[in-house]
Amino acid sequence: MSTEVKAYGTASADAPLQEIKINRRALQAHDVEFEILYCGICHSDLHQIKNDFGGTLFPIVPGHEIVGRVTAIGDHVKNFKIGDLAAVGCIVDSCGNCEYCEDGIEQFCDEGVTFSFNSEDKISGGHTLGGFSKTYVCHEKYVLKMPPFKDLAAAAPLLCAGITVYSPLKHWQAGPGKKVGILGIGGLGHLAIKIAKAMGAEVVVFTTSPSKVEDAKRLGADEAVLSSDAETMAKYARQLHFIIDTVSAKHDVNVYLNLLRHDGTVVLVGLPPEPLEVASFNVVIGRRSFAGSNIGGIAETQEMLDFCFEHTITAESEIISIQEVNHAFERLEKGDVKYRFVIDMASL
Amino acid sequence: MSTEVKAYGTASADAPLQEIKINRRALQAHDVEFEILYCGICHSDLHQIKNDFGGTLFPIVPGHEIVGRVTAIGDHVKNFKIGDLAAVGCIVDSCGNCEYCEDGIEQFCDEGVTFSFNSEDKISGGHTLGGFSKTYVCHEKYVLKMPPFKDLAAAAPLLCAGITVYSPLKHWQAGPGKKVGILGIGGLGHLAIKIAKAMGAEVVVFTTSPSKVEDAKRLGADEAVLSSDAETMAKYARQLHFIIDTVSAKHDVNVYLNLLRHDGTVVLVGLPPEPLEVASFNVVIGRRSFAGSNIGGIAETQEMLDFCFEHTITAESEIISIQEVNHAFERLEKGDVKYRFVIDMASL
Repeated sequence: MSTEVKAYGTASADAPLQEIKINRRALQAHDVEFEILYCGICHSDLHQIKNDFGGTLFPIVPGHEIVGRVTAIGDHVKNFKIGDLAAVGCIVDSCGNCEYCEDGIEQFCDEGVTFSFNSEDKISGGHTLGGFSKTYVCHEKYVLKMPPFKDLAAAAPLLCAGITVYSPLKHWQAGPGKKVGILGIGGLGHLAIKIAKAMGAEVVVFTTSPSKVEDAKRLGADEAVLSSDAETMAKYARQLHFIIDTVSAKHDVNVYLNLLRHDGTVVLVGLPPEPLEVASFNVVIGRRSFAGSNIGGIAETQEMLDFCFEHTITAESEIISIQEVNHAFERLEKGDVKYRFVIDMASL
Repeated sequence: MSTEVKAYGTASADAPLQEIKINRRALQAHDVEFEILYCGICHSDLHQIKNDFGGTLFPIVPGHEIVGRVTAIGDHVKNFKIGDLAAVGCIVDSCGNCEYCEDGIEQFCDEGVTFSFNSEDKISGGHTLGGFSKTYVCHEKYVLKMPPFKDLAAAAPLLCAGITVYSPLKHWQAGPGKKVGILGIGGLGHLAIKIAKAMGAEVVVFTTSPSKVEDAKRLGADEAVLSSDAETMAKYARQLHFIIDTVSAKHDVNVYLNLLRHDGTVVLVGLPPEPLEVASFNVVIGRRSFAGSNIGGIAETQEMLDFCFEHTITAESEIISIQEVNHAFERLEKGDVKYRFVIDMASL
């Protein structure tokens, strides 16, 4: 029998979020149910609520940086017990059989993954409803073991923002002897600084905002450059091994391709709605690449959580109540957050 | 004392090539002089003659796919003797000390390489004059050992077209179990088919020209697809490990990014004058890359020549006399060559 719980959602792109009731499915043999303690707010929540990409399934309950404590387990659950800390990020289901799932990169599943909200729910029918709610129910395979972070609220954004930058930093081998650029300092970029530094890389931040130059250094960057300062930018020509580009608006990646050493890569993790222009010379000369990366698989997300716990990395977070969420989205739209909102779900 | 020799060149972008006299420098200790037997014609010769990129140094003598036989050597030359076959490709000098030169990728030399024509000549002064001439003089470090190809004329295009596709095929690991796409069948593309097949890869050709579908198969491609055939194209979605893109005009690379498996790469080796648009989703989903590659270093060029000799790979060539060269450039401009012109320099 399903359980009715409180949530925050909306039935229309034009209406604010408000308290609604949703149903969580009765526990199946491998399901874990947990009470949600904290849920981070990501820009993609806002995009989906506003139906910016089309295809939003209403009523929508956003939230995909979900941290909680296990309250019930199915009969065959082996990896969790009641009282354990647990977390769910972006992915809650995938086919499990395709080469991508078998390679542990479920995010590219041939049949398409089920996201923690706003996806067709292949188990319960209807569509998935996210973490702006009292509880979550998920197959244990997609539930992460949440390490006992001292500041558990501030760890919630690791579930999406953290893995989104950890995965490319790992894949493109950030580490000692590597000079890594980070473009854009927001929810993603500020975590990229911390994680890249913890991996041992030298970190250079590029920002359009003078106020963030100092902030980037405070967050651990070795150097921070105002991208409008052409003279300083020129000094970085052919200096960087790779660059994580977190900018979600149209921008000129050619400037950054030219900062790469040979065989370097600009890795886009944002999703600018318009195509980006790449001049042929900027990739042909130096065998450079313009690449992308999207979240990470379940195993890698667990690895990232353990890494961040070990290195005491959490997001710079502003904790809010669920009642403040519409205002938070307004501020998020204006970029007025340093650097991530996290909802204390006890307020629901 | 320098030696005056016959060449074909022009003093202006508007004038046809004609017979002129040029000087080759007196042999220095490490110089090799060779009589030119054959010289291939590449589209970049045409661009430079016409000053398409600006900066052409007149009078220009084009030609950078140069095959000959050694006629004299400097006192300290160890690797060549009179009568040896020899070849010069794109690069005839580089700083030798930067990390790129030390890594054997002189093509990316920090100080800029000296190309075999139309570059500032740091040894003799003036600018370098290419292979449309009787002889060439070059430091032995940049002279290739030309294997005894049965069809030596048809091997000349390997010096630029061959290495331009061999280098990325090697770098992105074409071989057994890999499905490689080749976009565009011209001087570069037709050699890419032969080399990729010899490396053991499965080769799929994409072409806009119905007449080239059959030709691609004759050249060894496993499959050849008309890129305007949307239904067939859709069958290749997420199928290819990487794609060599030889198209030099503006085109939509997004179509081809979508044919890549995860972690796949579209490698541009052409130089479209306008920037190419890349939609963020097409790189972010599947962690795919849009990259470039430019010729290859000296050691890799030698490796490529030896590989092609071993696998009996040469270009499909139309042999012309030097007197036909202006007409050949006209035909090249219209794409009317299958697939490479080579000048028999005995005609000069």
